[in-house]
Amino acid sequence: MSEITRIEPSERMSRVVIHNGIVLICGLTAGDASQDIKGQTLQVLERIDSYLAKAGTDNTRLLSAQIWLKDIERDFAGMNEVWDNWLPPGVAPVRATGESRLARADLLVEIIVTAAQV
Amino acid sequence: MSEITRIEPSERMSRVVIHNGIVLICGLTAGDASQDIKGQTLQVLERIDSYLAKAGTDNTRLLSAQIWLKDIERDFAGMNEVWDNWLPPGVAPVRATGESRLARADLLVEIIVTAAQV
Amino acid sequence: MSEITRIEPSERMSRVVIHNGIVLICGLTAGDASQDIKGQTLQVLERIDSYLAKAGTDNTRLLSAQIWLKDIERDFAGMNEVWDNWLPPGVAPVRATGESRLARADLLVEIIVTAAQV
Repeated sequence: MSEITRIEPSERMSRVVIHNGIVLICGLTAGDASQDIKGQTLQVLERIDSYLAKAGTDNTRLLSAQIWLKDIERDFAGMNEVWDNWLPPGVAPVRATGESRLARADLLVEIIVTAAQV
Repeated sequence: MSEITRIEPSERMSRVVIHNGIVLICGLTAGDASQDIKGQTLQVLERIDSYLAKAGTDNTRLLSAQIWLKDIERDFAGMNEVWDNWLPPGVAPVRATGESRLARADLLVEIIVTAAQV
Repeated sequence: MSEITRIEPSERMSRVVIHNGIVLICGLTAGDASQDIKGQTLQVLERIDSYLAKAGTDNTRLLSAQIWLKDIERDFAGMNEVWDNWLPPGVAPVRATGESRLARADLLVEIIVTAAQV
């Protein structure tokens, strides 16, 4: 049976699941939701960096991203500015960005990524 | 060429696709959409159990879940109560929950999961 | 280290990522957003065909699809008509369809697919 490794499993979700060399990270939001879209996006990306490191990989090995914005018309440009700056050159994942209200009204962005383990 | 196994393929979608030991299940909604969020969530999870069994696995081997709620503010807590109760301890997948109107107005929740084959 | 192949990488996203025989395509929208849902869906599917070909596979090897519609009540039937006609018999992927406003107000549909390489 193939091994499944889980990081920080709770009764509801694991923060990271690793299977067959693929790293899946849960949908992440900002810890401090008082910030604007740029601040929240940066917080989310820093959390992603942290979980990628715990899984033994980094943001040069991303495979896919889904980005959900509470207000895509207002916040698409601000999110992109932080995202583009965070990503190293030449290693971008596939990406899709949509609009979705999130689990709390003050959350402006949620990002879901997958990566290859090193 | 790697083998792709499809369960209940129609002209529009397969209910399950299995490839390289990964089980993908289509977005599932409740058969009886007259029920409230708890009833609809339970129906969806029972359908997931059934398709996981047809694919030779179960809910201890889930990798990822996306949950789309018609009204996340109203129904997040009710969905979570049923979800948390359904999931065995220590084996939770990564998860992301967003808001989306669904294919019919009476559908309150749609869940998309992937799992590892046993 | 497992190899990651990227097609048309920009600073923001790659159009296609290939890893371990799995082809991931970015969320695709219509180039000419003046068209209605049928025209936009057809454009998106033709773009998917093109990227699948660049990755050495085709639409008989799809694994999964997510379809995001700006207005699911109005456009679900029109999208399905084009989708069903595009898909060869017996090879449908798993699929989930939700509602999401997209990156520009004139975009009516975005489709995200994964496929197995031949």
